[in-house]
Amino acid sequence: MPSTILQRLKAIVGEEHAYLPEEVDAASVKDHSLFADCPFEALVYPASPREIACIVDLCNQCQIPLTPRGGGTGVTGGALPVAGGILLSLRRLDRILHVDLSNRYAVVESGVITETFCTAIEAQGMYFPIYPGSKGSSFIGGNIAENAGSPRSCKYGTVKDFLLNLEVVLPTGEVIWTGANVYKDVTGLNLTQLFAGSEGVLGIITKAVLKIIPKPLKKRTLLAGFSDVRTACEAALSLSRGFIQPAAVELITRSAIDLTAPFVSANYPLLGPDVQAHVLLEWEEYTEAGLDLAVDESYKRLQAYDPVDVFSGISAGESDLLWSLRNRIGEAMTAQGCRYRDIDSCVPPANVFAYLESIDGIASRYGRRLICFGHAMDGNLHTMLLLPEGDSGVEALDLTSLLTDIYNAALSLGGTISGEHGIGCLQNEFLPLQLSATHLALMRRVKMAFDPRLILNPGKLLLT
Amino acid sequence: MPSTILQRLKAIVGEEHAYLPEEVDAASVKDHSLFADCPFEALVYPASPREIACIVDLCNQCQIPLTPRGGGTGVTGGALPVAGGILLSLRRLDRILHVDLSNRYAVVESGVITETFCTAIEAQGMYFPIYPGSKGSSFIGGNIAENAGSPRSCKYGTVKDFLLNLEVVLPTGEVIWTGANVYKDVTGLNLTQLFAGSEGVLGIITKAVLKIIPKPLKKRTLLAGFSDVRTACEAALSLSRGFIQPAAVELITRSAIDLTAPFVSANYPLLGPDVQAHVLLEWEEYTEAGLDLAVDESYKRLQAYDPVDVFSGISAGESDLLWSLRNRIGEAMTAQGCRYRDIDSCVPPANVFAYLESIDGIASRYGRRLICFGHAMDGNLHTMLLLPEGDSGVEALDLTSLLTDIYNAALSLGGTISGEHGIGCLQNEFLPLQLSATHLALMRRVKMAFDPRLILNPGKLLLT
Repeated sequence: MPSTILQRLKAIVGEEHAYLPEEVDAASVKDHSLFADCPFEALVYPASPREIACIVDLCNQCQIPLTPRGGGTGVTGGALPVAGGILLSLRRLDRILHVDLSNRYAVVESGVITETFCTAIEAQGMYFPIYPGSKGSSFIGGNIAENAGSPRSCKYGTVKDFLLNLEVVLPTGEVIWTGANVYKDVTGLNLTQLFAGSEGVLGIITKAVLKIIPKPLKKRTLLAGFSDVRTACEAALSLSRGFIQPAAVELITRSAIDLTAPFVSANYPLLGPDVQAHVLLEWEEYTEAGLDLAVDESYKRLQAYDPVDVFSGISAGESDLLWSLRNRIGEAMTAQGCRYRDIDSCVPPANVFAYLESIDGIASRYGRRLICFGHAMDGNLHTMLLLPEGDSGVEALDLTSLLTDIYNAALSLGGTISGEHGIGCLQNEFLPLQLSATHLALMRRVKMAFDPRLILNPGKLLLT
Repeated sequence: MPSTILQRLKAIVGEEHAYLPEEVDAASVKDHSLFADCPFEALVYPASPREIACIVDLCNQCQIPLTPRGGGTGVTGGALPVAGGILLSLRRLDRILHVDLSNRYAVVESGVITETFCTAIEAQGMYFPIYPGSKGSSFIGGNIAENAGSPRSCKYGTVKDFLLNLEVVLPTGEVIWTGANVYKDVTGLNLTQLFAGSEGVLGIITKAVLKIIPKPLKKRTLLAGFSDVRTACEAALSLSRGFIQPAAVELITRSAIDLTAPFVSANYPLLGPDVQAHVLLEWEEYTEAGLDLAVDESYKRLQAYDPVDVFSGISAGESDLLWSLRNRIGEAMTAQGCRYRDIDSCVPPANVFAYLESIDGIASRYGRRLICFGHAMDGNLHTMLLLPEGDSGVEALDLTSLLTDIYNAALSLGGTISGEHGIGCLQNEFLPLQLSATHLALMRRVKMAFDPRLILNPGKLLLT
């Protein structure tokens, strides 16, 4: 990159907000995928849509790839500058602009940390339930670009279900609002929803208007152990037939329990050898009476599947204890030096057990091991494929073949390659397993409609 | 149209399923807008995506405009063949293919009548809450293409919130599924949601996979009269701050009451001269206890606004009686020979009263009268602009100016031109009031990405 480009970036954002690669620390350009560092030519921190538009104009003029970047918590490489060029962090767009209690929406800049937003509105009695595990460092804009899910998705949906309107800098350098700050809007094409999960290839989200709801005041947590995975899956599925949705229905299979148990508190609910899978439940309601109704209904359904143990958490401390095993799986794996590839196929919920059985068989055939847990009621499991030391999980040849088998298993059960992690640059090659050539060509034409020079986030989501 | 085209259509769909205009009755080519009949050249009733794809190919080869048509209940002309050419009815795609109780979705062809679908799944204990007033003749595919709303949208959302996957014949003649039959899917761009509200300009929806939920078993209805519209609006808004959402919160102002009262049963709740507006509420819950919680909470909120009268409906008969005034407004207007243009701007809910005040002032300045009622909690009112006899409401010059003022009033209050009716060919000219030239140009490029020859539903939604 000619030094004049860096000078032009500095002219746009100020001297102290544009850097050469050698001037920045590695953490500010990484994400949570297994990819090695990508070479790039400048890192820039704009503070406004106007500055971003100027940077986009510059990239168009000079045909420089531009990669937008949120909190860097993605696991499929969506925020990595795989084609080089300019890396654009949204970090300085970090203001909560307006919380409208009457109309129940909030206007935020896209660089606001998800947890910061959640905490701020909860202080006002409101709630935004779609916080992913990475909420402490992920940005709202990244959550939108990935259409993030959450353990609470089985009750509340995904980020797309809370989007009212977006301000976006288009790859052509213009700024639009995609919709209006209202609950019903059919004026024009539904571009707001098209941006949900668009992984930064169609535009750079700079502001979002998010629906917020009253904060539930009552919560209860329950952990039920089952003597086999099939029964646990059936019990979880039976809850979805109930009238009152739990806010979370997580499955934790024995492989994850064994790996994580040493890392949780010694007074973690006793784990008999009989327990082959846990179902972790949580309800969020507004009244004690409503909570009792919900828990009673679910409890009756669970009992029909003869759980080995049931532990109930009423206080925050008890609830945290019950969640601790689920929440520390990743940490336990890292502490034991495991490297893993997190597969997040989603299948129709009734097919979860068939899917688990099928992929366990596949992993065995390849001599690999899977650690399975996740969002059972949505059919969206996390399957951690353990990688041998030194295997980056990106290039290994037999991995492509193994992943192809796993994704085909999900697809043959009516599923999809990714339920919440997205495609990024990690899973492009598998898209043709699910999407026809016609479908892929159409997506590329849509991309061209937004980004005729293909400068924005090249190498992501699409097969380009 | 050369007669060979009709022959080719008959070769695709069979002799008895393609007609010249003079062979069809007027009702099968009209909709509920105020537009006069549009000349067209053939009406065709295909029975499958494959047949539709062949018709699309023919239209591409011969550059013939193609207008898809659902139940013909739209009010903005979306199903009218304004550019001539071939009119394609989805009427024969009328099968409910699969109701999956375990995974809580249904697979239907797009020509299924909405009410037929609702009745079929309710017989199995399931529910699809987004049925518009026209449910008795509208098609599911049309509801999706318009992203239809419902009086129940304040609790359940709009059709887009119940879409899992769509089968679509693209304007290029290829057939794709836009997503997967799962609750979470981020594999590729969110084309499923882009089709919601796309008004038939991006593709012809042939099948839909719709989320279904357990059918609520308990219902209660309540009608509260208020001595002024402002208080009624405030009372309706206060309900949205509650924990438990009513399934419907409808506002009926005095103008609608006066017009409709003679058409409802004599034992309709007594209407004192003090009532200037009704708020009609309905709750749908699963248990009597849950219903009591919901009604009690709302009732306390309403009481704070000092209603003149409150009537409660517990039995189906009582509920129907309370809904009768709301449901018969259109019929009452027609019976009195009123012609009207139904304006359905949506504003943030806290701005409903300001919007009503503003547009009443505008109508007065033009010497016109408005009949206002609708979905108060969503901020989405129906405003019937009465038209003088002989005024088609489409061409009248002063109407453009009046509507411009009304839409600008909605926009200045943070609203949108249309909350549920769409743009069709009735409101194209107003799009630039809300959407920038950049936004409109982007929508046209997206249209071109789907339909490079611009054969599908020309003259609708976009300024083309």
